[in-house]
Amino acid sequence: MKAFMDKNFLLSNETAKELYFGWAADTPVLDYHCHINPREIWEDRKFENITQVWLGGDHYKWRFMRSCGVEEAYITGDAPDREKFMKWAECLGKAIGNPLFHWSHLELRKYFGYDGILNKNTAGEVWELCSRRLADPSMSARGLIRQSNVTLICTTDDPADSLEYHKKIAEDDSFPVQVLPAWRPDKAMNLGKPDYLDYLSKLEQVSGVKIDSFDALCRALRLRMDFFSSMGCRVSDHGLEYVMYQPAENAEIETIFAKRLKGEAVTKSEELKFKTAFLLFSGREYARRNWVMQLHYGCKRDNNTLRYEQLGPDTGFDCINNYTPSAEMTDLLNALCKTDELPRTILYSLNPNDNQAIGTIIGCFQDSTAAAKIQQGSAWWFNDHKTGIQDQLTSLANLGNLSGFVGMLTDSRSFLSYTRHDYFRRILCNLLGTWVENGEYPADFETLGEIVKGISYNNAVNYFGFDLEKA
Amino acid sequence: MKAFMDKNFLLSNETAKELYFGWAADTPVLDYHCHINPREIWEDRKFENITQVWLGGDHYKWRFMRSCGVEEAYITGDAPDREKFMKWAECLGKAIGNPLFHWSHLELRKYFGYDGILNKNTAGEVWELCSRRLADPSMSARGLIRQSNVTLICTTDDPADSLEYHKKIAEDDSFPVQVLPAWRPDKAMNLGKPDYLDYLSKLEQVSGVKIDSFDALCRALRLRMDFFSSMGCRVSDHGLEYVMYQPAENAEIETIFAKRLKGEAVTKSEELKFKTAFLLFSGREYARRNWVMQLHYGCKRDNNTLRYEQLGPDTGFDCINNYTPSAEMTDLLNALCKTDELPRTILYSLNPNDNQAIGTIIGCFQDSTAAAKIQQGSAWWFNDHKTGIQDQLTSLANLGNLSGFVGMLTDSRSFLSYTRHDYFRRILCNLLGTWVENGEYPADFETLGEIVKGISYNNAVNYFGFDLEKA
Amino acid sequence: MKAFMDKNFLLSNETAKELYFGWAADTPVLDYHCHINPREIWEDRKFENITQVWLGGDHYKWRFMRSCGVEEAYITGDAPDREKFMKWAECLGKAIGNPLFHWSHLELRKYFGYDGILNKNTAGEVWELCSRRLADPSMSARGLIRQSNVTLICTTDDPADSLEYHKKIAEDDSFPVQVLPAWRPDKAMNLGKPDYLDYLSKLEQVSGVKIDSFDALCRALRLRMDFFSSMGCRVSDHGLEYVMYQPAENAEIETIFAKRLKGEAVTKSEELKFKTAFLLFSGREYARRNWVMQLHYGCKRDNNTLRYEQLGPDTGFDCINNYTPSAEMTDLLNALCKTDELPRTILYSLNPNDNQAIGTIIGCFQDSTAAAKIQQGSAWWFNDHKTGIQDQLTSLANLGNLSGFVGMLTDSRSFLSYTRHDYFRRILCNLLGTWVENGEYPADFETLGEIVKGISYNNAVNYFGFDLEKA
Repeated sequence: MKAFMDKNFLLSNETAKELYFGWAADTPVLDYHCHINPREIWEDRKFENITQVWLGGDHYKWRFMRSCGVEEAYITGDAPDREKFMKWAECLGKAIGNPLFHWSHLELRKYFGYDGILNKNTAGEVWELCSRRLADPSMSARGLIRQSNVTLICTTDDPADSLEYHKKIAEDDSFPVQVLPAWRPDKAMNLGKPDYLDYLSKLEQVSGVKIDSFDALCRALRLRMDFFSSMGCRVSDHGLEYVMYQPAENAEIETIFAKRLKGEAVTKSEELKFKTAFLLFSGREYARRNWVMQLHYGCKRDNNTLRYEQLGPDTGFDCINNYTPSAEMTDLLNALCKTDELPRTILYSLNPNDNQAIGTIIGCFQDSTAAAKIQQGSAWWFNDHKTGIQDQLTSLANLGNLSGFVGMLTDSRSFLSYTRHDYFRRILCNLLGTWVENGEYPADFETLGEIVKGISYNNAVNYFGFDLEKA
Repeated sequence: MKAFMDKNFLLSNETAKELYFGWAADTPVLDYHCHINPREIWEDRKFENITQVWLGGDHYKWRFMRSCGVEEAYITGDAPDREKFMKWAECLGKAIGNPLFHWSHLELRKYFGYDGILNKNTAGEVWELCSRRLADPSMSARGLIRQSNVTLICTTDDPADSLEYHKKIAEDDSFPVQVLPAWRPDKAMNLGKPDYLDYLSKLEQVSGVKIDSFDALCRALRLRMDFFSSMGCRVSDHGLEYVMYQPAENAEIETIFAKRLKGEAVTKSEELKFKTAFLLFSGREYARRNWVMQLHYGCKRDNNTLRYEQLGPDTGFDCINNYTPSAEMTDLLNALCKTDELPRTILYSLNPNDNQAIGTIIGCFQDSTAAAKIQQGSAWWFNDHKTGIQDQLTSLANLGNLSGFVGMLTDSRSFLSYTRHDYFRRILCNLLGTWVENGEYPADFETLGEIVKGISYNNAVNYFGFDLEKA
Repeated sequence: MKAFMDKNFLLSNETAKELYFGWAADTPVLDYHCHINPREIWEDRKFENITQVWLGGDHYKWRFMRSCGVEEAYITGDAPDREKFMKWAECLGKAIGNPLFHWSHLELRKYFGYDGILNKNTAGEVWELCSRRLADPSMSARGLIRQSNVTLICTTDDPADSLEYHKKIAEDDSFPVQVLPAWRPDKAMNLGKPDYLDYLSKLEQVSGVKIDSFDALCRALRLRMDFFSSMGCRVSDHGLEYVMYQPAENAEIETIFAKRLKGEAVTKSEELKFKTAFLLFSGREYARRNWVMQLHYGCKRDNNTLRYEQLGPDTGFDCINNYTPSAEMTDLLNALCKTDELPRTILYSLNPNDNQAIGTIIGCFQDSTAAAKIQQGSAWWFNDHKTGIQDQLTSLANLGNLSGFVGMLTDSRSFLSYTRHDYFRRILCNLLGTWVENGEYPADFETLGEIVKGISYNNAVNYFGFDLEKA
């Protein structure tokens, strides 16, 4: 029996260990996709206790506590922090097979030096230990980032965002890590939302463009993209129910947009046409600017109306949308490719059943402008566990060029989530090591090491084209 | 090489064995979902030979024999029982990798004390042995249930059923096992079926309600639910092609129902609206009565018209329906949740690709009224094998609270199928044991044992709220 | 650590080795589905260098090179053969986990006697070795087929094809391998294609039937089927986006066809009705002729318009179509079965998610006219790798009669691809061996050997009904 989560955690053979310790463990982290609040970095936020860090905004943990029948008061409610933590510690033992069990213990080991097992018996000592540790300056937002060997962070930002904190951080020579914005224009695309017109007003203000047509919306967005570019942005991101392709003439798009501007409702079909036009416009602009396009899809959000009204979005009530037609996604990429305006693109579905379809679609649009120009994104959100990561890596390897993969993203709001890179790298090294041990790939450590280091870090640096020296 | 199906069958490591023998093997069975005929329990049916037990109604075996090219005479036809068994014995060797191979041998070991391998060479001796054993009183319907350490059985019953045999069994002090009805109102929901109006007549008779509107149908069903409740019913079940959500106003539902009452055909869209209304009505009534709602879906039935006309339903001609939109299922649950009328619910798809979508959907509707209030049901029917069970358990663990799972159902017409619980428990213990051996969960046997016992039995007792002392 | 791709490649235990070397390794190959050009067999094509063999038409390799960012000149362009090979050798090391890595080395071992690892350092010596070996007469088209222990080949042929090379090969007593046509009527079915009417003209010429109605089209096809039958054809194949079932009256089909004959466009719905009628007609004719029907589906082709215009079809720009409704496929099979006109049928989806649905559908239509009359086809194209093959075998075993499986197809344009049979057999033996080692199936080598030999060869001989003595 292997010891619980020791240094060889998830590494089941000698080759795996050699790859992990030789090429992965000390490689820096390039966090090209997360939801960290840049203000918290600027202000170098400190935390009083582990509940603030762990339960303050982590809807993964909230969901799990609800699955254990815990009352909402101890989850998002007003129970005292210590009691919330006690409840969490009690739930954690039930999380057998769940990545929360591993993440929590990885974080306790790495940031708090705790090698035990958190449960209701140890909860008290862990609470004390964490409180003591969190008082240390190395445990502030910036301290945690530094500890985690991160060279660059891309946050997730709305086109209307002022990026003031990105600017302040960039100007602060005392902090060596680049914090760049990423372009997330969902609010500009989601025509059907009740507050869409309010959002347009906001965009009018920051862009100085009167948005009285789709063409004007595009002009406003182009100005904001220019601004984002000037702030170092190299990557965009879209959150979609699915990747649609319902093309229409410009005139029809203008009619749909005009209808919405007047406050009228648009039909489902009109919405899809508008979104298609929006994605085509976006893709072309990204290609022009040499930005990477990320499409995250397969998600149906805010499914519990009762809770949504109490707690708002991103509180743990989203699920997989299994309507993700591969034909439409392919046609969208082709529409961009046809005129040579397809940017480097990363496709992430929340539905792991889409792994193989994605693997075959990306193969249709590769070319010599970049290695692995079109990528299948890392196992994401609900797939961010051993099974999901292994399946994504295996499918990508079966169908394409695993060696060119840009690897892991944290996708997190927490400063402790860098351990997810460690988790990912262990699984990666174990998979490659197992292939080698089974005689399915040569024990050529030079090549293997390059592949591991590439997927852990170097591929992302090259693919996104970040200038790490600027920092 | 491990010996074939010895006592450590499916248990690949020491922790797995410790968990199985320490906490699973001797734990009773709570059979909350099966298709056993209560009359056969009441009458304490005896069997003359193994063909009656094995081939009398088991469409799993029939399908396999057809796959081997066996003539129907030896399957459902009038060939003598002994010849049918000889054919089955010949086919069985071909069932490599098929759960039938394991189930058959588990049953031979447990109930007949036969440790050999059934094949054409041994078929004669097995036939004789089984005939001898079946003459023993312990091998009657009741004897088999007692041997199997079953504490409670829920059969599957139509709202119009008199439940006379449930009553008789309840009144019979000599039989300690509770046999409760479960509510299965498919016939009342399947508006599109040719014999729907005949069914309504039947329901009118038993309920005393003139069913001249949807509202009246609901009234009749409520009365029958009251009766089922009085007979100890705590659980309902729906068999669906998929879980639909096409909401409509009451008036429209009444119009659709009136149309059908007049003998007119309803459109597909009307049918979906009616079924949605039926499910909403049902869910609300279950919530009120504190019943559990089971939704079994992803099944397309009676696909071979030729055979259907000869043999009727449930004879081995069903398949997976892969149209199972996660969005509609989520919206249906939300519609019930919005008004706080969502009962405890178990979701089972026949399509294993739905595992992950279900795992994320249940997480959207958990609350503190029950641990794991919304459940992903056990790997079912076509998924009831090592791969299917492992995948369901792993997906549930990855995405939610495996510890709160209510576990296995037999879903069988046979009194020997309790071995499926043993099969399931071995796979469960092996999975948990493997995680522990790999250092992915601590070797804390107190917690592990509680989890194993919970999933094997205790969770179901608590979740369904059965009063085991009543028996 | 196992040595890289030694004689025990993919065989992880003793039983697996015993099964492979005892029953699989020396068993002949029946290549019932490939895309080899019969003219190349007749002319006994010779190859000058390994680039001609490997990169002349292999879109698997082309896709991988594009994924590595290689310029098209080195892929399908006019770079010199040696330089193309150098690029390929450089890419190959990146193909970790990809079947191309294994296929390439299996081919180097078997046909070129090269036991090393191909990479940029060894590329020069491999190029020289291959050029020397290819000059040997045993390395011609016929030589390679003989070396590969092939007894029979079915090519893939259009109904309008003259089959002249099949005739010549049949008449040539010096070549003992049967090369039979297979019927692939996609061009006659694809009503929506721009060149459909041109195709009909071609069909009119070879059949002598004026095609002025759907009925006339059927007559022309029947005549061509008679001709194919006379040339030894026993098997058909359809390449479909998905298996549709949109039935319509004959008169409506005639109207749709007449519309198309006039050069008018048909709607999507009309196309689906026409294709349904075409498949029903085809299936009935196959049943009458005792031909096997193969349905390959789940594929969306030619997705990169830019490349399609440069390179044409089958150049590496196809992907999985994940719209594959199980309900329609089942209804199509039922429509044929209802009148007892369902031929022996093999179903292949390009989407591995369809494994389980297919496994349950085939079980609905088995009968005593053949063992495993309805088959799930081998893991195909994008699924032709260890994961895909294991998953298909496991799913088929879980749900049906693995022992009756007709096994592997090469589906290739290359004469070296017979190693894919070896790859498949190793995976098969390893899977069965692992079950035996785990105590899940008895170590009865007589039965196991028969199963292995059956799936490797004998089942296909029996299922297709080839007369191997005629050769």
